[in-house]
Amino acid sequence: MESAIDHHLTCPRTISRRVPDDYQPPFPMWVGRADTVVEQVTMAYFGVQYLDDDLRPSALATLRDMVGRLHFDDGPDHHDLTEHTDNAGHHNLMVVGYWRDPAAFCRWLRSPAVADWWNSDERLTDGLGYFREITTPRVDQFETLYAFQDSLPGVGAVMDGISGDINEHGYWGSMRERFPASQTDWMQPAGDLRIVAGDPQAGGRVVVAGHDNIAIIRSGQDWRDAEADERALYLDEIRPTLLAGMDFLRDNGDTVGCYSNRFVQSIDLDGNSLDETYNIGHWRSLEKLERWAESHPTHLRIFTTFFRVAAGLEKLRLYHEVSVSDAANQVFEYINCHPGSGMMRDAQVLSAPTPTA
Amino acid sequence: MESAIDHHLTCPRTISRRVPDDYQPPFPMWVGRADTVVEQVTMAYFGVQYLDDDLRPSALATLRDMVGRLHFDDGPDHHDLTEHTDNAGHHNLMVVGYWRDPAAFCRWLRSPAVADWWNSDERLTDGLGYFREITTPRVDQFETLYAFQDSLPGVGAVMDGISGDINEHGYWGSMRERFPASQTDWMQPAGDLRIVAGDPQAGGRVVVAGHDNIAIIRSGQDWRDAEADERALYLDEIRPTLLAGMDFLRDNGDTVGCYSNRFVQSIDLDGNSLDETYNIGHWRSLEKLERWAESHPTHLRIFTTFFRVAAGLEKLRLYHEVSVSDAANQVFEYINCHPGSGMMRDAQVLSAPTPTA
Repeated sequence: MESAIDHHLTCPRTISRRVPDDYQPPFPMWVGRADTVVEQVTMAYFGVQYLDDDLRPSALATLRDMVGRLHFDDGPDHHDLTEHTDNAGHHNLMVVGYWRDPAAFCRWLRSPAVADWWNSDERLTDGLGYFREITTPRVDQFETLYAFQDSLPGVGAVMDGISGDINEHGYWGSMRERFPASQTDWMQPAGDLRIVAGDPQAGGRVVVAGHDNIAIIRSGQDWRDAEADERALYLDEIRPTLLAGMDFLRDNGDTVGCYSNRFVQSIDLDGNSLDETYNIGHWRSLEKLERWAESHPTHLRIFTTFFRVAAGLEKLRLYHEVSVSDAANQVFEYINCHPGSGMMRDAQVLSAPTPTA
Repeated sequence: MESAIDHHLTCPRTISRRVPDDYQPPFPMWVGRADTVVEQVTMAYFGVQYLDDDLRPSALATLRDMVGRLHFDDGPDHHDLTEHTDNAGHHNLMVVGYWRDPAAFCRWLRSPAVADWWNSDERLTDGLGYFREITTPRVDQFETLYAFQDSLPGVGAVMDGISGDINEHGYWGSMRERFPASQTDWMQPAGDLRIVAGDPQAGGRVVVAGHDNIAIIRSGQDWRDAEADERALYLDEIRPTLLAGMDFLRDNGDTVGCYSNRFVQSIDLDGNSLDETYNIGHWRSLEKLERWAESHPTHLRIFTTFFRVAAGLEKLRLYHEVSVSDAANQVFEYINCHPGSGMMRDAQVLSAPTPTA
């Protein structure tokens, strides 16, 4: 049994845990481990948005083009592809890239092949919407949790290994306690989302400024290798409840502090569905996420089901990763997306928005 | 908004809360307040046990006799009556008395009218079983929580008033945080239950020694004044789930750290049912109670229902009180009760039990 907080990230606590020192979790779970050289990671969600089904081939071609650019110098160490229908009925294709070196990410983002493409006027006129939502948490600002130990997805894919059984899971509050920062920091939000360039209602280019400690959760389900019993467990028992909860957050998230919630379907480069889904949720704070997760009937039902089956899972892969980040390490940019997209929906419009080119 | 921890019980924390300072509960709730002169309270459960229905009149007469003795000098400041069928199908009548002055309780317990009755050989031969389970927590060792503000039941009846809206509720961990002791003490158990006199299998008199920080929860439901809608809410929606959870703890409590669990029906002196019930549960520790409450489907379902309706409750009175106590302030004694009764079930039998008279 070891702590979810890696040795080199341990520090004298000013905030205590909520469970006694001899707490024993009811079943084993694991977290990702990164070498000490890893100090910060970049998680970058790039999206293509369209409303009319006729635009799907064009959107998929654009996604493939974006994926091609990931393979340029300083591209991400890992990426995956998804699609989803959003809170306004628009379709969205996304590629998420993970970098274990934010400097490499910066070089990549600023490279002409990437920057020129994003800044091109063609992006305004080619009939598709685009967005990029990028955060770069320090290693004390994110945590992971896996019910398996191999081939870690998401940020785990750019880490260096897996822990032994960890202590901090199986109780409400354990998510927070897996963050190294939680030893001394409440990770409270400061400020509000603000539109700092553009006008969401008018379309075109919009930039949203975030704020400290926006929390992002990626919570995934992979049944690609599952046998019939675990496929049924996920598809028939877990998924309907999960969808109800995720639909609630997609459509009513503003009532509970959830800025954006996308339940996404993993796809291949041709847009074919894989047996893998995940949810990507942006929250005002870790606390808002905790309050919802601990009290919403859908999430509690999933939680009790997971408790019941966790010890026996074989091929059904369930996991999550949660991060917070400094406002300075956040990018939320939109081109011709509907005004309810991503961080735009809940962002405050300044009295005199700055027009952008 | 005020803290559940009364001013005079506040001290510098060595253990932090689990929620940020600006936490706001989702609806109002209240706690009991006692004058500063109250330092410790006694909660004494006195029971009469019988198996054969024919013994009910005799058991009721004995209960009435016991209630009569409560009115002697130094008797309790408040009491109530209940009945329940236990984990072995035996019937039990109980009277619980609350004293706001443990010295008065001691004088009462040692008074000839009480002591002689308990010690009489007639108790061994009159065909009924008897038990007394008594704890005397200090005021930093118990907490209360009410969804109403008047005529407090249980320990609240021997307190002096009600708080304003309190902060520490609506999240997992808030029960612990309402204990003044939680500011500096994990309230961890030490030792095990032990049979220190008698032999539960043989019947007769048995004494069980407790251990530090046994946790006791009384969780109540009073629909005596409720209108039709709230009666239906309780009887049709809450109660079936509640019973499933309480039956689980009664029959399988040993698997989760629950020593004893009795879901009891309030009665009058003639044994007629009132529209009031409560559960009285004894746990190895507050932590074991927390883990069960936070993860068992039945309790989570009740919790979400309560969250949904709490703000609108009018006449349906829901509440709880939870205490821990020092081993030195615990009494667990049984006469001719079946060996699964109360603290006997999970008590370790010493190799050479001391016979009692």
